[in-house]
Amino acid sequence: MSKFLHPVDVAEAVATSRHIAPDFVPEDVPADCATGRVLCEDVIAREDIPGFDRSVVDGFAVNFEDTTGSSESIPALLNCGGRVSMGAPEQGLVVSRGRCAYIPTGGVLPEGADAVIMVEHTERAGDTVLVKRPVVYGENVLFHDEDYRRGAVILQAGRRLTPQDTGVLAACGRTSVAVARRPVIGIISTGNELVPVTATPGPGQVRDANASMLAAYLNEYGCDPLHYGIVRDEYRSFEDALSKALPECDAILISGGSSKDDRDMTAGVIAGNGEVLVHGITLAPGKPTIIGRIGTTPVFGLPGHPASAYVVLIVVVLPLISHMLGEKKPCLRTTRAVLGDSLPSQKGREEYIRVRLEERIAYPVFGKSGLLNTLVNSDGLVCIPAGCEGLEKGCEVDVILW
Amino acid sequence: MSKFLHPVDVAEAVATSRHIAPDFVPEDVPADCATGRVLCEDVIAREDIPGFDRSVVDGFAVNFEDTTGSSESIPALLNCGGRVSMGAPEQGLVVSRGRCAYIPTGGVLPEGADAVIMVEHTERAGDTVLVKRPVVYGENVLFHDEDYRRGAVILQAGRRLTPQDTGVLAACGRTSVAVARRPVIGIISTGNELVPVTATPGPGQVRDANASMLAAYLNEYGCDPLHYGIVRDEYRSFEDALSKALPECDAILISGGSSKDDRDMTAGVIAGNGEVLVHGITLAPGKPTIIGRIGTTPVFGLPGHPASAYVVLIVVVLPLISHMLGEKKPCLRTTRAVLGDSLPSQKGREEYIRVRLEERIAYPVFGKSGLLNTLVNSDGLVCIPAGCEGLEKGCEVDVILW
Repeated sequence: MSKFLHPVDVAEAVATSRHIAPDFVPEDVPADCATGRVLCEDVIAREDIPGFDRSVVDGFAVNFEDTTGSSESIPALLNCGGRVSMGAPEQGLVVSRGRCAYIPTGGVLPEGADAVIMVEHTERAGDTVLVKRPVVYGENVLFHDEDYRRGAVILQAGRRLTPQDTGVLAACGRTSVAVARRPVIGIISTGNELVPVTATPGPGQVRDANASMLAAYLNEYGCDPLHYGIVRDEYRSFEDALSKALPECDAILISGGSSKDDRDMTAGVIAGNGEVLVHGITLAPGKPTIIGRIGTTPVFGLPGHPASAYVVLIVVVLPLISHMLGEKKPCLRTTRAVLGDSLPSQKGREEYIRVRLEERIAYPVFGKSGLLNTLVNSDGLVCIPAGCEGLEKGCEVDVILW
Repeated sequence: MSKFLHPVDVAEAVATSRHIAPDFVPEDVPADCATGRVLCEDVIAREDIPGFDRSVVDGFAVNFEDTTGSSESIPALLNCGGRVSMGAPEQGLVVSRGRCAYIPTGGVLPEGADAVIMVEHTERAGDTVLVKRPVVYGENVLFHDEDYRRGAVILQAGRRLTPQDTGVLAACGRTSVAVARRPVIGIISTGNELVPVTATPGPGQVRDANASMLAAYLNEYGCDPLHYGIVRDEYRSFEDALSKALPECDAILISGGSSKDDRDMTAGVIAGNGEVLVHGITLAPGKPTIIGRIGTTPVFGLPGHPASAYVVLIVVVLPLISHMLGEKKPCLRTTRAVLGDSLPSQKGREEYIRVRLEERIAYPVFGKSGLLNTLVNSDGLVCIPAGCEGLEKGCEVDVILW
């Protein structure tokens, strides 16, 4: 039953994680609350945007051919036939050859005109406008379908909406949009040494830091974390917590106590109520990770050391979450940096090293994975692939940012 | 009154923006809602963490000197004197010389012991444990104050709290924490061409995209945006909107119509009720930006083109907001990339070019600043400093990510 003697590689663990992930569930939300959410539909332009030919400068609407050859010394002379107001096309205003009309930025290009000359390149003398440089066809004009053409896909399903996307949704008149429902992720803490945040730890006890950290990360990523408290290492209380969480959650994380007994208990309870798919990953830190399923609900057993739990969350659990959100892959922020120190590694396991960034140099933050300070004092992770014996100081690396 | 004829450089505009920023106002929030908020206090360790000497592996607690010289072929023989339970120190369990005790990960190091040998490097024979390699003093032990010492500063004021910080707060028993109150930022849209998102634009009209985009960005950054609707280009309605917004907001953004008339109106109304400090910045896009103050409330006039408004928000308004949050500088995500194309620029103005990232190469996204699609199809901005005539293809640049 236990596969711990045969740990799988990270690729297989990630594939398992995505394979057991439930599909996303769409829900409509107001467009102005949708930033950061993952789109479940293609957003299509229902009309041309901006919808009419507009000037992008303050100037004069002209026929471009009337300006050909004009210069400071020999300006073209045009007769000014009116003024465009903002927000409404001027009735009967036509710019025929030899004529022009004043147009503010954003104004509707009048009939007959095909370009705009900036006011800075003109001089006014009564009804006559002196044009001091030529413009080409369409210059300083935003054409009616230049931003988006009716029927075009503006935003694709699977995209995490940005603030500027919210602007585009407004421009198309979308007040609501279909996004993936936030997955509900249950967190059960185990370990006889754990006490709640509100308690004063007795001898041998520590407060439960991992559950808060996991919940905060999941919440930021787009999930609704649900706490099920701290469960003692007893089969029955463990099963009770699981049976409460199962109907309420889309997936469950068991934030492990750190001892082997505790891991065995987690694997035993998952196996007793469902199936253990992975028990052990060639990943450091994070080897004693469990991936299982009870009914159709994914259940993960995470290691107890905070740094290990965090690495497993990012490397193994996020692929599940991102599938549940309809993303093609996890949305991780990365940056390129130069390694400030050499990193030895054991071949045969994928290793993640905490690093601190200083002026684009990534310095390894060594330290036991039980230390919270190494997580707080680092900016992200550098991956050493399984087939690699280490990375040399000075080489370029991608840093997965917290 | 108008300083438009003497635009200031970006450094002066940013200095003005920070200078007029109100100070942050602290508020207590539950620690588990504090991720992303900016801390207003130094968080101090009120006790040692973890608080007792713990094992970081499953193994045997020993006196390290008893293992000196041990090997596979000549193991050290120790008498196993008991077992450490999780969550409580064993009464009376003492590891004297020649003895050891089983200890799970996270267990309390028993009296007398000073190191832990991993179970993998031992063999059990009844009450005797064969130790097959030596350990040094403190090996596999997390000392009582190794994570944080009582009195140490764990998190510094001004820090934007991460999920792992939330974990540390839990570890110290902090259930609430003082963070900067979210500044309330009013947004007034002006421009006779603008209609609300819910309207169908008539001829010459467009929907107000900028207000939604600005609000979404501000909300993500940690503000509470408040909409005051669309105001027509008339002095009185403009003043009415301002006098409604002033008592309710910590700062006000006037999302400009795009014409010169509209900019003049904005400057006129700010000057008529307070003072215009900056009118025009040597910034592209974003030149026609206004910075002013009515009473003690900062009021910004932003350009009407969406891309210009976005650049001004990031470059000029964010320094104000970050001051209001107690941050030393704006928290902008950046990444290093190689420029995929040469960027010419005019000396004497700071220019921001939208770029699309592909495999660490930043390709410029050219296009009129009135186009929303250039914002949606780009990943961030590259800055060309004012003293520079452009950047060569192939050079390394920092990209400010959306």
